[in-house]
Amino acid sequence: MNPVIELLNSHRSIRKFTDQPIPQETLNTLVQAGQAAATSSFIQACTVIQVNDQDKRNQLAECAGGQAYVAEAPVFLVFCADMQRNKLACEMNDAEINSGFTEQFITATVDVALFAQNLTVAAESLGLGIVYIGGIRNQIARVSELLELPELVYPVFGLCLGYPDQNPEVKPRLPVEVVLKQDSYSDSGDKETIAEYDKSVREYYQTRTGGNKEMTWSEQMSGMLVKEARPHMLSFLQERGFLLK
Amino acid sequence: MNPVIELLNSHRSIRKFTDQPIPQETLNTLVQAGQAAATSSFIQACTVIQVNDQDKRNQLAECAGGQAYVAEAPVFLVFCADMQRNKLACEMNDAEINSGFTEQFITATVDVALFAQNLTVAAESLGLGIVYIGGIRNQIARVSELLELPELVYPVFGLCLGYPDQNPEVKPRLPVEVVLKQDSYSDSGDKETIAEYDKSVREYYQTRTGGNKEMTWSEQMSGMLVKEARPHMLSFLQERGFLLK
Repeated sequence: MNPVIELLNSHRSIRKFTDQPIPQETLNTLVQAGQAAATSSFIQACTVIQVNDQDKRNQLAECAGGQAYVAEAPVFLVFCADMQRNKLACEMNDAEINSGFTEQFITATVDVALFAQNLTVAAESLGLGIVYIGGIRNQIARVSELLELPELVYPVFGLCLGYPDQNPEVKPRLPVEVVLKQDSYSDSGDKETIAEYDKSVREYYQTRTGGNKEMTWSEQMSGMLVKEARPHMLSFLQERGFLLK
Repeated sequence: MNPVIELLNSHRSIRKFTDQPIPQETLNTLVQAGQAAATSSFIQACTVIQVNDQDKRNQLAECAGGQAYVAEAPVFLVFCADMQRNKLACEMNDAEINSGFTEQFITATVDVALFAQNLTVAAESLGLGIVYIGGIRNQIARVSELLELPELVYPVFGLCLGYPDQNPEVKPRLPVEVVLKQDSYSDSGDKETIAEYDKSVREYYQTRTGGNKEMTWSEQMSGMLVKEARPHMLSFLQERGFLLK
């Protein structure tokens, strides 16, 4: 194990930050590190909106279900999948983009995630902490309006950044043998391995909450996945020109 | 700039590898580093298939449009978005998953990309080179059959890994000012900045190909995006239980 892998393995979400600001120059460096990630067929479909305006920050925190750190973190970024810039590239060459394909939705979304994870690693290497905010998709139409996102752009997630003012434990992950399979997909033995893993997650929550939370991984998943998952997403995305075919 | 950020900024795809094998223990370490990335609401929806079987590797190379390194790289991984394991977690608690939501497709796909990028950074920190293989989506149904992927699992991309036997230049990215915006989306000035950037991409290709390729970024994008983009994707994904609502 080397220092980079140790850094990756030490990741945990940070939701409480000190007041120490992040210089804009540092943030630009992080964005460049994000851009250095692979990009599908060179589409470079990630656009980052840095939200400084406090009123917008407050509204975004509300959209995300009242997560105060969205309003309070020294930096808050919204990562957008952006095919609008590619449309512009087509126009610059008198060509018309053939948009709306599910494939393009996938490549743009993957581009955003690769970019964001590189930016995250760069941030953590500087001693910063982060938390991804999927909650902005609760009210994705309102978020898009607030940030004046045009057609062919959608906000995938937010990211809070700052110097950590807490030091939570690393959350245990599924055993490698469940996640890495050889030559084909087989879930033989997975149920037993997950049942064992469930115990370590229960312990993690017990320790973290001083015994107030008793929850296994599979319980947490089943509690969540029996419910509807942001059922507005498909129609919203189609209105913005995605997932039409 | 620190060594981690230097590492991130030095990324370029590697398509030619030495024969030096990657020990399985090292690969497990990389997978664990992948798992350490953030995961949306803890769903851990990424499953990796390590393909060792040479016949399968040859077929995957064919699926990817004849990319020989898919067959030849010391290690080839297929990254899958996997909601099947979450279905299992529901069953373990006598609950029925409410699947098919676009939102779940996004979270699972993002999970995979965050995982893969962490794995990539870990690999590059050990001196390995990688290339993402989106081409497996050319024949996504055949790839899924080959790897015996069940419902609620889809192959997002492949990844070749090995010790580099080439040393290509880093490809220039869009200027930060196009990619990072303040408080709202505006493309004012982007056309001019892209036109400037186009020149540096043309130079990059000229240098890399000894003058044989003359192509700007916007030309490359427009040439690609006027065409259909894997039009089979939506119906395939819906058959597998994704993007139904």
